[in-house]
Amino acid sequence: MLKNDLFLRALRGETVERPPVWMMRQAGRYLPDFMKLREQYDFFTRCRTPELATEITVMPIRQIGPDAAILFSDILVVPQAMNIEVEMKPGVGPWLPQPIRSAADVEKVIVPEIQQTLGYVMEAIKMTKRELDNEVPLIGFAGSPWTILCYAVQGQGSKNFDKAKRFCFTQPQAAHLLLQKITDTTIAYLKEKVRAGVDAVQIFDSWGGMLSPEDYPTFSWQYIQQIIDALKDEIPVIAFAKGCWYALEDMAISGASAIGVDWTCAPETARKLTGGNITLQGNFDPTRLYSPPAEIRNRVHQMIDAFGKDRYVVNLGHGILPDIPVENALAFVNAVKEYKTP
Amino acid sequence: MLKNDLFLRALRGETVERPPVWMMRQAGRYLPDFMKLREQYDFFTRCRTPELATEITVMPIRQIGPDAAILFSDILVVPQAMNIEVEMKPGVGPWLPQPIRSAADVEKVIVPEIQQTLGYVMEAIKMTKRELDNEVPLIGFAGSPWTILCYAVQGQGSKNFDKAKRFCFTQPQAAHLLLQKITDTTIAYLKEKVRAGVDAVQIFDSWGGMLSPEDYPTFSWQYIQQIIDALKDEIPVIAFAKGCWYALEDMAISGASAIGVDWTCAPETARKLTGGNITLQGNFDPTRLYSPPAEIRNRVHQMIDAFGKDRYVVNLGHGILPDIPVENALAFVNAVKEYKTP
Repeated sequence: MLKNDLFLRALRGETVERPPVWMMRQAGRYLPDFMKLREQYDFFTRCRTPELATEITVMPIRQIGPDAAILFSDILVVPQAMNIEVEMKPGVGPWLPQPIRSAADVEKVIVPEIQQTLGYVMEAIKMTKRELDNEVPLIGFAGSPWTILCYAVQGQGSKNFDKAKRFCFTQPQAAHLLLQKITDTTIAYLKEKVRAGVDAVQIFDSWGGMLSPEDYPTFSWQYIQQIIDALKDEIPVIAFAKGCWYALEDMAISGASAIGVDWTCAPETARKLTGGNITLQGNFDPTRLYSPPAEIRNRVHQMIDAFGKDRYVVNLGHGILPDIPVENALAFVNAVKEYKTP
Repeated sequence: MLKNDLFLRALRGETVERPPVWMMRQAGRYLPDFMKLREQYDFFTRCRTPELATEITVMPIRQIGPDAAILFSDILVVPQAMNIEVEMKPGVGPWLPQPIRSAADVEKVIVPEIQQTLGYVMEAIKMTKRELDNEVPLIGFAGSPWTILCYAVQGQGSKNFDKAKRFCFTQPQAAHLLLQKITDTTIAYLKEKVRAGVDAVQIFDSWGGMLSPEDYPTFSWQYIQQIIDALKDEIPVIAFAKGCWYALEDMAISGASAIGVDWTCAPETARKLTGGNITLQGNFDPTRLYSPPAEIRNRVHQMIDAFGKDRYVVNLGHGILPDIPVENALAFVNAVKEYKTP
């Protein structure tokens, strides 16, 4: 059925001829054709219009050639569906006019009916699957409950998410109620995505690393674990928590099919912390794509040698940056395709 | 001589009745009296006027009672002395009108004569030492060369310092020339501080954690090691690199008297990574000071139990945040003073 199932085979831990490759945020601002669409349509219009989401999702498959597609969308469509207003301000990023700061605010947050509120995502998945015509698998994703809470409470991006953490540490009951509502919504949302046709799902805990090893299980991991438990028998789940090297050991025994690793954890360390038996995904420093293509190639080959070619998905350690030259992104993907076991 | 030498004894690894405590950024915006001075004098005026720097440095000693003072100043006075213009923009933070982007820019950077350019810091040290009257030791500090480069090239704070890293990865020769100039200046600067009377120095590598474990030794650690080598026979050196848990093993054998640890590395892990024989400093999550005072107290006691009372300096895992209630900062310091070995 799938013409290229390398990615799914790596998630199952099978022996492969070379590891699969994709890039977080591969459908995005480093592509000139994406920039043209960006001039015409604002951010959430692109997310909400299945034709546009499909076009953007498929664009890197045609132009860069990774082994998996990831649906163009945003983690913040989930809080939007939950009755939390989210805007995307040019030059600022996510911006919430009415951030959550009290138990009363949490009360107003709903666990929505998914088809009614996020049906457009399911439409985009079906359209993308048709467009991909079984060329490569399609990944669906969601933010972790903690990362969604970070935005919902802070109201915008932040270097330390101090307001989000203050909310959790001074009003833990309200915080846990909010986290559970996000978790319940996310489980229903991802199950709908599975029904719509995605081949794997990834949970992005972009701000997990703001929490200490002591607070991480309480405010983030236990909710991700609920999501994994609910999904793992239906579809492969990838958990990626930026800055959470300290949680890799727990993540490895969670039932997830693969664990994402950021660029601050060396491949050997990641293998050691996760016990050596689970598929890992990562972890090229996104700013290392500024290096000349020949150097990118060498570094990718070293990275594959360090992770080992099996139980491994080549990726960046975080999203690709907007000003990376297309040829450098290509050099990254092609280096993986050219890889030969030493 | 010193009435309270607990801090210096901990740096020497001696057995102590309880660990010493101080807080990064303890002289700062959470103190109402600091805010009054802030309304009257702009940031660099406060740094450059020895009377003001002294008053601000001594303020937390009188009001909060830590076991060490740290001179009020900023890591960016060093690039200023090197002919790099640095402003402090309200609401933005550090801002450089002409960031360094080329080898030609690096050429214009000077290694300055210290007394001529930074004599005001030495005046502030002498004045503070008189004012402290040997009550507690005084810490002097500098930014790491990498962290200074981050600001000098990026031109302002950043969530990923992409421009700084691009500069290093595409123009490594120019980057290393700049790093060496900053290193030479920093060594001369810290030696002058020692002559002026500080009792210990701390190197802040605030943005070390932006680099991968592979790039860290090249672009950051080798320069910090030069500084430690040049200073360690004259004075105790503390190295603090935020986000650099992966470098703790190397840091432990560097000749530094103590290693700072941020809040994302558990005490037991930090002890394990550093071999158990070096003094560690840290690592209370700064946002955990939002917790109620009784909870702060319990968590501080647990932290001391986990690090062990000897070869340990209680501190935060990063600077104190501006909106922490004074009573919570007091609860933190007092919890250490009340500590009894279990």
